[in-house]
Amino acid sequence: MVYETSLERMKDMISTFSKFGDAGHGGITRYALSEADLLARAEFIKRMKAIGATIEIDDVANVYATIEGSDPTAKRIVMGSHTDSVKNGGNYDGILGVMSAMEVLTTVVEKKIPHKHPLTAMIWCNEEGSLYPPAMMASGIVCYPYLPETIKPGFEFDNMMKSKSILDNKTTFAEVLETSGYKGDKKYRLDRDRYLYMFETHIEQGPILEDAGNDIGVVDCVLGMFNYTIKFYGQTTHAGTFPMPKRKDAFFAASEALCYLHTEIDKLAKELNVPELVYTTGEVVCHPNVHTCVPDYFEFSLDSRHEDPKVLDRVMDIVKSLTKKDWNGCKCEIERAWNRDTVYWDSKLVSYVKESAEELGVKHQYIHSGAGHDAQFAAYVIPTTMIFVQSKDGLSHCEPEYSKPEHCCEGASVMLNAVLKADKE
Amino acid sequence: MVYETSLERMKDMISTFSKFGDAGHGGITRYALSEADLLARAEFIKRMKAIGATIEIDDVANVYATIEGSDPTAKRIVMGSHTDSVKNGGNYDGILGVMSAMEVLTTVVEKKIPHKHPLTAMIWCNEEGSLYPPAMMASGIVCYPYLPETIKPGFEFDNMMKSKSILDNKTTFAEVLETSGYKGDKKYRLDRDRYLYMFETHIEQGPILEDAGNDIGVVDCVLGMFNYTIKFYGQTTHAGTFPMPKRKDAFFAASEALCYLHTEIDKLAKELNVPELVYTTGEVVCHPNVHTCVPDYFEFSLDSRHEDPKVLDRVMDIVKSLTKKDWNGCKCEIERAWNRDTVYWDSKLVSYVKESAEELGVKHQYIHSGAGHDAQFAAYVIPTTMIFVQSKDGLSHCEPEYSKPEHCCEGASVMLNAVLKADKE
Repeated sequence: MVYETSLERMKDMISTFSKFGDAGHGGITRYALSEADLLARAEFIKRMKAIGATIEIDDVANVYATIEGSDPTAKRIVMGSHTDSVKNGGNYDGILGVMSAMEVLTTVVEKKIPHKHPLTAMIWCNEEGSLYPPAMMASGIVCYPYLPETIKPGFEFDNMMKSKSILDNKTTFAEVLETSGYKGDKKYRLDRDRYLYMFETHIEQGPILEDAGNDIGVVDCVLGMFNYTIKFYGQTTHAGTFPMPKRKDAFFAASEALCYLHTEIDKLAKELNVPELVYTTGEVVCHPNVHTCVPDYFEFSLDSRHEDPKVLDRVMDIVKSLTKKDWNGCKCEIERAWNRDTVYWDSKLVSYVKESAEELGVKHQYIHSGAGHDAQFAAYVIPTTMIFVQSKDGLSHCEPEYSKPEHCCEGASVMLNAVLKADKE
Repeated sequence: MVYETSLERMKDMISTFSKFGDAGHGGITRYALSEADLLARAEFIKRMKAIGATIEIDDVANVYATIEGSDPTAKRIVMGSHTDSVKNGGNYDGILGVMSAMEVLTTVVEKKIPHKHPLTAMIWCNEEGSLYPPAMMASGIVCYPYLPETIKPGFEFDNMMKSKSILDNKTTFAEVLETSGYKGDKKYRLDRDRYLYMFETHIEQGPILEDAGNDIGVVDCVLGMFNYTIKFYGQTTHAGTFPMPKRKDAFFAASEALCYLHTEIDKLAKELNVPELVYTTGEVVCHPNVHTCVPDYFEFSLDSRHEDPKVLDRVMDIVKSLTKKDWNGCKCEIERAWNRDTVYWDSKLVSYVKESAEELGVKHQYIHSGAGHDAQFAAYVIPTTMIFVQSKDGLSHCEPEYSKPEHCCEGASVMLNAVLKADKE
């Protein structure tokens, strides 16, 4: 038996939640625990209470809405994502996973679909970390005891509570948590004793599904990645008085190195036949950054992602080779910011998602997740997987972010049927 | 008869003025009309009063110290520069010209050197514009009525008074002027009725004299220049989810364009045989400047300087050609920030400087000024020229900025004898 969720309800939810933090240009700004986020959370609780769900809130403002199953001893199957957004973000990133979870529970209740396990719809708090860094803060805290030692640093509870608002560099996360009304009980945190599986539905945030003509992605992993800072040291001199051949221009050095990186990494991607390899240089610092001074310092970030750690090792070799060259008289140093290994989803859950998509006749394909998600931390606690919904033009973290309601509804239906397969085990 | 100034006094002045704004690493931070600048001004007035000079202060805090000449109808010959510095600047930029002017007057008084014209030592206020932009503010205001229409905009009195402190973005120049005690009378401004010639001694701020083994530069002009902003428009996308071939990375586009500019301008410099052509890309803006986002916007400044406007026109052709190319899918636009023509010093005054250096047996050469100075505005009011003193390693606008006291003393002696030649006309 294959079940479908309601397109009408999905449309209504998209329209309703898009109002909470409406930034006036088709998208939202909805920082974690902001006024707009509290409205979104209240809407979630109202709708979940209306179908008879029990609400639990843990000590870092994660919200769990649960409907009982027929087996009182069975563990919960949880579905969820986040309600917070980046500044001037879109109406789908995060919230789609919350709406999909609500839709699964509502459909189960409405259609009286038999199920053994309790089913939980969940809000992860502060996934974006846009106002209180870092990203995936609450999942980091909750999953902390289960995380590998290489990932743990940075997610200690006490440290996270001290995270300061990037707006006033003063208000702490602990303070906003206290006044939000969402500081619950630690005993409600996601754990292995009460929870069995986790599913997260999310927009793709890339153009792969759209280009391939597929609506839904069966996600198999979150890509491994590393992040380096590449630094160039030159000498600042006056724009008008210093001859060109004697200059040590750190910005020019960095530009030549960036072009070199593109040439070498593209060559490597061809050699290894890995066109899916991505690398990004998104953040720069220039000093003294004055139009009449030759820059004496320039740095840029380098983020590279691929499933295979051997591929990333080869990219890293290229990055390391930068330090052995002279860049127009400037010295190059590199500093590792952080890295993570590829996180593979539970293969049984992935197969449930695949089978559900087939049975529903939804156009789908396997896909990797290039972005990080709360699910990747949850995966260290319980078996976890993800479902992707097609993104228009691959855009996200911006107001034009868009996914068709039909595709959103298909995503929820795929999750519903995959959850029911897991329930039947 | 050739006169020499006092090396002992020069050493004493360098050491004394270096204390006003001492930043603790061998250099100073002495913003215009700051506490440190008020100390430097008080020292100037104290020393000038001690030799019997009359002090006048105009309405924008320029200070004029004058000793009378034998002809009561003769116009004044003025020498001067500025006391203010950039943040963490050195002990020579600006102040050397003020100390040299003081030293000329002191030597004339001490040695009772006969002279017809009154001689004036002067402080120009806020040459650096480090706290209250723009640079050369007070000379811009005072010389405003004489400036060409292309330079005038930006130096209107009312506008300049509204210039806000870059530290608090609130306090205006008018306010600090009011409380400084240096808001004098407009009638004392440099003009054509009372002033005949202007001389400015300054450090070279480049390595040309040192490399050639010369102590003193006979400056013949301030180089013409233009300043453009080069802008690249791409598309921001997620670092992990967006395939490389579809990206429009504005930082990568800018880097390729910068390398192209270097190649093409260097080729042009060879073709035209102008190795002295300089160009600088010192200031950048990157948006959104987040390590997990492909930049959708990147801009850099381009400052280029050369004596011959035809050479600058050819450089501009290369800059303009940027907009006709596709830079990895990004569009390029350029925007002219400002430009100025080459300002030639008065040839008679230049020859006085040259003859004085020869007669003193000082190692010297002709040189252009790549940097802007108050003298270039004064040149529109009265015949003007400059004298450069060797800079160690060509460094300036930084704490290691250094010129040998012997060279500073030679600079003052060259100015003294050049002024006496002008006095004898």
